[in-house]
Amino acid sequence: MENLSPNMSTPAKVLVVLSSVRDGRHGAKVGQAVMKHLESNPSISAEILDPMTLDAPLLKQPLHFMPDQSAAPSWMTDTLAKIKESAGFVIVSAEYNCTIPPALTNLLDHFPLSAYRHKPASIVTYSMGPFGGVRATVALRPFLSELGMVILPSTVSIPTIQNSGITEEGSTEENERVDKNMKKLCGELAWYVQALETQKTSSDGVPN
Amino acid sequence: MENLSPNMSTPAKVLVVLSSVRDGRHGAKVGQAVMKHLESNPSISAEILDPMTLDAPLLKQPLHFMPDQSAAPSWMTDTLAKIKESAGFVIVSAEYNCTIPPALTNLLDHFPLSAYRHKPASIVTYSMGPFGGVRATVALRPFLSELGMVILPSTVSIPTIQNSGITEEGSTEENERVDKNMKKLCGELAWYVQALETQKTSSDGVPN
Amino acid sequence: MENLSPNMSTPAKVLVVLSSVRDGRHGAKVGQAVMKHLESNPSISAEILDPMTLDAPLLKQPLHFMPDQSAAPSWMTDTLAKIKESAGFVIVSAEYNCTIPPALTNLLDHFPLSAYRHKPASIVTYSMGPFGGVRATVALRPFLSELGMVILPSTVSIPTIQNSGITEEGSTEENERVDKNMKKLCGELAWYVQALETQKTSSDGVPN
Amino acid sequence: MENLSPNMSTPAKVLVVLSSVRDGRHGAKVGQAVMKHLESNPSISAEILDPMTLDAPLLKQPLHFMPDQSAAPSWMTDTLAKIKESAGFVIVSAEYNCTIPPALTNLLDHFPLSAYRHKPASIVTYSMGPFGGVRATVALRPFLSELGMVILPSTVSIPTIQNSGITEEGSTEENERVDKNMKKLCGELAWYVQALETQKTSSDGVPN
Repeated sequence: MENLSPNMSTPAKVLVVLSSVRDGRHGAKVGQAVMKHLESNPSISAEILDPMTLDAPLLKQPLHFMPDQSAAPSWMTDTLAKIKESAGFVIVSAEYNCTIPPALTNLLDHFPLSAYRHKPASIVTYSMGPFGGVRATVALRPFLSELGMVILPSTVSIPTIQNSGITEEGSTEENERVDKNMKKLCGELAWYVQALETQKTSSDGVPN
Repeated sequence: MENLSPNMSTPAKVLVVLSSVRDGRHGAKVGQAVMKHLESNPSISAEILDPMTLDAPLLKQPLHFMPDQSAAPSWMTDTLAKIKESAGFVIVSAEYNCTIPPALTNLLDHFPLSAYRHKPASIVTYSMGPFGGVRATVALRPFLSELGMVILPSTVSIPTIQNSGITEEGSTEENERVDKNMKKLCGELAWYVQALETQKTSSDGVPN
Repeated sequence: MENLSPNMSTPAKVLVVLSSVRDGRHGAKVGQAVMKHLESNPSISAEILDPMTLDAPLLKQPLHFMPDQSAAPSWMTDTLAKIKESAGFVIVSAEYNCTIPPALTNLLDHFPLSAYRHKPASIVTYSMGPFGGVRATVALRPFLSELGMVILPSTVSIPTIQNSGITEEGSTEENERVDKNMKKLCGELAWYVQALETQKTSSDGVPN
Repeated sequence: MENLSPNMSTPAKVLVVLSSVRDGRHGAKVGQAVMKHLESNPSISAEILDPMTLDAPLLKQPLHFMPDQSAAPSWMTDTLAKIKESAGFVIVSAEYNCTIPPALTNLLDHFPLSAYRHKPASIVTYSMGPFGGVRATVALRPFLSELGMVILPSTVSIPTIQNSGITEEGSTEENERVDKNMKKLCGELAWYVQALETQKTSSDGVPN
């Protein structure tokens, strides 16, 4: 694979997808923390995909169902381009009433499954309570899998995020458990990105 | 209970909550079908709660977290009033990528759990494919339960909704299976509404 | 209802169903704790249903599918009788690898849905880790609902059960949070048992 | 692995894990169908893991928690060896009351997560009703993921298995949809087995 082996020139792109657009959300700093950990790996080039910035409306029509896709708003076509270019994802999710924040499903529902398919994804959740969003992880599995993502074994769950010691800039140094788990998760993602990108270029192509 | 026995003067209110705001959605006619079945029961007064009409933005702040709730937009306070007045719910849900349409979680996430608590809810799902939205039912259970609703045993799942014979006006006469199951579901909901409303007025109050 | 009002003669029966048959399980003491809280209510008569005692084999044939049910082993017919006599359930579940312990599904799968239908059920989970079995609660919802149970809003989740202070005899006095939540859950179950039993005897019967 | 990389000599092992031990189960023929499709690929060597044959008791103690593992029964040590040697899995699951048959969770719960970790797994479900076991697929995701398996995008769901035309010997020729989907699923699994096995041998090892 050009991107990850010693002889490769460009790092693989990974999108860090946020889930919450609530005032006072904690997701932005969790996203920054993931960025920091991903970017410590020279084979990865990471970027945030933030539903708050994109300000997508509630889904009227997915891009691929539009009769005239050239008339789609630019946030849609730009976002689809980013998703297509990505070799992997980290989903950074809050938990709202035991399930997935609507801004996350709403954003990803806009795009064709082919843009996600056969790309590895890692799940990071957080909550203000004691359970760290683990029920959001359960809820995310069938959703992300239906999109075609390949969900990796390591997850990170951050309880009482407001007291976690994670800084606005994304430093996890004060929280040994989160620091260690994020490092493990990001290393695992890089390993799978390399495995799948290598196989996509070296074997008889990509499965359907 | 004043509302349901022969000597009662006003019917119990039930909200039929839609989930999809997609162009060309099939949910409106399914909602109409539920309305028809509910309204055949004189003890029930049913109303549609439609996220398309309400046009709620993606959740910035739930009503109960607002520092000044008197500044909340009128759609929020009006909707909360309707939810509070309701004695039960029918959730009419599509299935988007194996999970709940974001317009549904987004709408209900705006309001305090106390408005939903200890009220019976029935689930009706539909899909354009063969599985009738049964995975949305699975996804809805922890969400609606966290809100505090009491989910009833009977469900209705409508596969290939586009060929189901349900009319825009909500007639289910052409689809014997759906017709029978909707009748059963609505009868069950009325039974539970009466059971819980009676108990709320006759015993030592409502549990927390 | 004869069982719960001042003029009623016999308490309503509730089954406390255990889930784990592992050596060194913590479920037995959690079950005892539920028993203590239920029995403080004179309108309830509680009993443990323990898959370890019953020692059911892995399901070969549910009772209701047997061509000759009179040839069923006595543990099956006795257990079915207990389930039928019950007006409600408390499910006491461990969490094995994010889901339901097999001894619990295996036990309940043996019996016809009609024995569970329209009976309220409360969920109590525990784990040796920090998340208290909340993912087992998510997994239990579609299973218990398919059986026909009506799952109640309040749940109890007990993390690090080995350090919870719950005694083998089921005292929860040392754990204020668990004590309070168990009291709430058991009071809620009694309320719903009364509501549904009253409605079953006073209205036009039980829904299908 | 001769058939996958130039320098490999032996096919990769895949375990086809059955879930049901019910009299009259349909799972055996579905397992045979998966075997046929896998074995048409010379890079794969497939074997059935059948809880009915193994006749495991309900879990008393997982192998890795036993103080003296050398005293473990031979079915346990033999099965662990098979799982360890496998490079991937196909899970063939029925759906019992909306969730996973207990014989499947019970079997896999006996073994350490390290034996499953970072191995790809595909899910095939079936049912006698119209929904093909898709709710079992939802329930399997958190369970298999917690074991450490990497669940692949393609799934096969077989409704009304009793009329599916699949023969006892596992021929799917009479059912075009199932035949096509099984072929796709098995090809995808072989692709991921190759990707991950190659990466495990060529990069700096396997992630934790």
